[in-house]
Amino acid sequence: MSRDLVELAKRRGYFFQSASAYGGVSGFYTYGPEGATLKDNVEDAWRERFQVREGHREIDAPTVMPEPVFEASGHLDTFDDMLVECPECGESHRADHLIEDNTDIEEAESIPISEVEDLIADHDLRCPNCDAELAGVPVEDFNLMFETNIGPGDSSPGYLRPETAQGIFVEFPQLAEYARNQLPFGITQIGKAYRNEISPRKSIIRVREFTQAELEHFIDPTEDEPPLDRVADVELTLYSAEEQEKDDGEYVTKTVREAVDEGIVHEWIAYYLGVGKQWYESIGVDMDRFRYRQHLPGERAHYSADCWDAESEVDGDWIEITGYSYRSDYDLGKHDEYSDDDFTVFKQYDEPKVVERATVDPDMSYLGPEFGGAAGDIADALETLAERDRKAFDGEEVAVEVGGEEYAIPTEKTGFSVEEVKETGEHVLPHVVEPSIGIDRVVYTVLDHAYETDEIEGETRTRLALEPAVAPTFVGVFPLMDKDGMGEVAREITDDLRAAGLDVTYDDSGNIGRRYRRQDEVGTPFCVTVDYESLEDDAVTLRERDSTEQVRVPISDLDDLLADLQAGETTFAELDAPAPEQ
Amino acid sequence: MSRDLVELAKRRGYFFQSASAYGGVSGFYTYGPEGATLKDNVEDAWRERFQVREGHREIDAPTVMPEPVFEASGHLDTFDDMLVECPECGESHRADHLIEDNTDIEEAESIPISEVEDLIADHDLRCPNCDAELAGVPVEDFNLMFETNIGPGDSSPGYLRPETAQGIFVEFPQLAEYARNQLPFGITQIGKAYRNEISPRKSIIRVREFTQAELEHFIDPTEDEPPLDRVADVELTLYSAEEQEKDDGEYVTKTVREAVDEGIVHEWIAYYLGVGKQWYESIGVDMDRFRYRQHLPGERAHYSADCWDAESEVDGDWIEITGYSYRSDYDLGKHDEYSDDDFTVFKQYDEPKVVERATVDPDMSYLGPEFGGAAGDIADALETLAERDRKAFDGEEVAVEVGGEEYAIPTEKTGFSVEEVKETGEHVLPHVVEPSIGIDRVVYTVLDHAYETDEIEGETRTRLALEPAVAPTFVGVFPLMDKDGMGEVAREITDDLRAAGLDVTYDDSGNIGRRYRRQDEVGTPFCVTVDYESLEDDAVTLRERDSTEQVRVPISDLDDLLADLQAGETTFAELDAPAPEQ
Repeated sequence: MSRDLVELAKRRGYFFQSASAYGGVSGFYTYGPEGATLKDNVEDAWRERFQVREGHREIDAPTVMPEPVFEASGHLDTFDDMLVECPECGESHRADHLIEDNTDIEEAESIPISEVEDLIADHDLRCPNCDAELAGVPVEDFNLMFETNIGPGDSSPGYLRPETAQGIFVEFPQLAEYARNQLPFGITQIGKAYRNEISPRKSIIRVREFTQAELEHFIDPTEDEPPLDRVADVELTLYSAEEQEKDDGEYVTKTVREAVDEGIVHEWIAYYLGVGKQWYESIGVDMDRFRYRQHLPGERAHYSADCWDAESEVDGDWIEITGYSYRSDYDLGKHDEYSDDDFTVFKQYDEPKVVERATVDPDMSYLGPEFGGAAGDIADALETLAERDRKAFDGEEVAVEVGGEEYAIPTEKTGFSVEEVKETGEHVLPHVVEPSIGIDRVVYTVLDHAYETDEIEGETRTRLALEPAVAPTFVGVFPLMDKDGMGEVAREITDDLRAAGLDVTYDDSGNIGRRYRRQDEVGTPFCVTVDYESLEDDAVTLRERDSTEQVRVPISDLDDLLADLQAGETTFAELDAPAPEQ
Repeated sequence: MSRDLVELAKRRGYFFQSASAYGGVSGFYTYGPEGATLKDNVEDAWRERFQVREGHREIDAPTVMPEPVFEASGHLDTFDDMLVECPECGESHRADHLIEDNTDIEEAESIPISEVEDLIADHDLRCPNCDAELAGVPVEDFNLMFETNIGPGDSSPGYLRPETAQGIFVEFPQLAEYARNQLPFGITQIGKAYRNEISPRKSIIRVREFTQAELEHFIDPTEDEPPLDRVADVELTLYSAEEQEKDDGEYVTKTVREAVDEGIVHEWIAYYLGVGKQWYESIGVDMDRFRYRQHLPGERAHYSADCWDAESEVDGDWIEITGYSYRSDYDLGKHDEYSDDDFTVFKQYDEPKVVERATVDPDMSYLGPEFGGAAGDIADALETLAERDRKAFDGEEVAVEVGGEEYAIPTEKTGFSVEEVKETGEHVLPHVVEPSIGIDRVVYTVLDHAYETDEIEGETRTRLALEPAVAPTFVGVFPLMDKDGMGEVAREITDDLRAAGLDVTYDDSGNIGRRYRRQDEVGTPFCVTVDYESLEDDAVTLRERDSTEQVRVPISDLDDLLADLQAGETTFAELDAPAPEQ
């Protein structure tokens, strides 16, 4: 983590460790006034691009979910990290991290526990807190879900969801009904998810409570195709599994269309990589520090046909900010299997299909007297046989086995017939395409990529060059001084701009240069200054953060002009006669 | 709860009980596609009115918080309900609800536990589940916070926050620094809060996981005044404590200004009642089924100077949808006391104040030899005396008591003097004004008040008359039939309107009348139909939900027109030549 950025984040109200008055809690961060609004803006931009524009719809499910959901999803069994607890000081550590930090071994997470214990002994690893020996200390699986109980007692365990996705999957039957059983349809959710990390680190990059924005796009894999045309020409920086496995593996740049045509990326994943690329760029992710990396065969879940991560470079490391996964019918299949509900959709044929179906209608007045108590079972066996092997009814007699005994029944007593039946459709388990965004990591990336220093009039200036579309404070309004009526005018402008829905900061303390620097650090794209001239000409100075250039603007034009600048409908450079900062 | 509304809510994707595939979990609801967007829209409208326009800022704190926070806030001790567990079937019940449901007693929540036990015995109350006797069964306090543990082991208990407010209070030191120690300032938060109800009921009105929107406005009570002018003329329907205590108590209608001038409502509370009234009305709460009710002296917390609830009438009951409380310095005072941090702000005087301060500078070369081991304590006693009673130094000798003995010290050896000291300010504990909104209850109210039936062409029509500003689906787009190019045109319009940020439903199934009825039930304010004429004249039929009137609109004007209708900048009635539904 960049210490400068983390320090600025705390000082300027972006984010800070929670509950520091009580010593803080590791892995929990609070977004301050600037951070929460930046996060809101990122979420709104995501919603606009991945949901509204794509015609998908959003749901809002509880964060506390009952145990059976996670039995089905597999989280109860396998959502674990390897825990080793120091026998001396009692501190808990992630065993795989100890190995990675102290040996040349990478990706220790995938090493079996017994080998991890051996590696700890072989390398004589010690407790990072008190230096006690860890050789011989058992390594255990620690489930990363926060557990609680629903209602009094302990008979009804609940868990804080480890991903928002399960809240969508588990409600699929209701959602399919809402969508009138028509595939494809997409459901999104933005909300908190939880991971009870053993020892969290890395600021808001790895926290115990975080925000996800997930889209589950339910499709019929035999029919539905992504609308590739919409993003066909978007260029993607791709780091394929094949290239990663080479010594001199390289990124390739391909359009979405090329990536699909050349078989590099699954078409559904490619579509969302294209949508994603446009979105990251629009919120200010630096495309020179961005790539799509394919999961290696060992990383990918067995059910996933293709999986790519969007990665950004922050502080010299590549971090995952979004996972794009083709999840097949795995998730719905699990809930279909574990619950009593139906997770398929009924797919209507364009025209009903006529199929032949063999049935029996046994003559019970013959079977009963003839076979006594076995008659019912014999009738069932005949029915099963008719479905499986209608040739068995070709002769004079039909043989079936019931309870280890063989019975011969005259074919004429079975009521065997082949009928033509109309079928109007079939039940199919939809496949799922999932872009899963880590909002906190995207927010961190946006801040990191916006962090810049330059020199203004011989002084170093720190600024957050945030995109106007996401900047949490959009405009600062200053009276030159709070006297002779300038304060009143500035406060009136502040109220008007707020009524127009803009996030405005009013500031009348310190000299103008200092106030500009403060807003540069906050990342405020524009500042408005009311000076003595304003009292005469009803105009103000509008100053742009990045260029520090200024133009004079009538007060009456301000709200429309700023709204246009925020929406990207005009640029500062297009305004009349900019003059250098005074 | 209205069964019709709850049924419509499930069928049309507003809300439904969570995880019904696994039998459901009581007290947990999922907002479906329409409900989640309605909730988003209500939250955005709240943010716009209570936050952006007021110049307040938002934060986003974790939902899991450590134990010391709730020791300080009092939730660990007192956030309880009375639990009685059936000895036969094991079902848990709220003891106070049992009494209310089976006797004439109201507000049983405030009855002490021992009396509750007696009442259960006296009235021979039985388990509603299995009819077992409950007389003699102990009633216990059950803490309503969901408990979990942070990290491995059980040494670090954490709780799901029972209110978003604590996430603001606990970070006050950081937030005051952000606000550069200048009162007043306001901090908002919208997010999940939790209450582990013993036996939840009443749909989304009383749930275990809910969404709050809270504003904590930090003020200096000796100086800050609300900007009453902004809402002075807003009319409030008030049901004061005084009126509630009368047999024939009545509501009074007062403007905000009158309510303050007549001493009915605290000025800060009155300001937010005015803001609130405007807001509820804008999102579609029926003002004939809305009132402000003052807390009775017994309901109000001891630290609260005034407290009013906004209440809406749903299904014949009045329910609290917002609490407006003047919380004084209670919350910050508790954290100031329990934590090591400082929860005051340093209030700078306009001009430094010169104050006289009496000090001593005892001559230890005299005190030491003269009083030996007692010399140090005597020096301390002199200092305390100087602060408290400078007249004691008027004579030749000063008398102090140390360890039960009296000592006389020559005044000249005490180094007594009175100095003038400049003080630049003082530390003050801010007061808090808190509007606390229950978003789920507001959403329920908006739906309930929008639910209407009327008759169209002899058929009963159900519709949600939602305000365009909050309606989750804003426009339905239909081709008359999906053939001869009408489907293509309708899909193109759908894409264009989505790109303009509008929530659009595309529907080509069933006859047009049926599609209109479907959208009427969803509450979609407008529908657009592409017919054969559209292929000739590039125009479509725009139909309004409530009046069912229709106008013809050029396709090229649609996005601007609909945006204006959503923003309230034009009304359907203002459009040209409306004609009755065909």
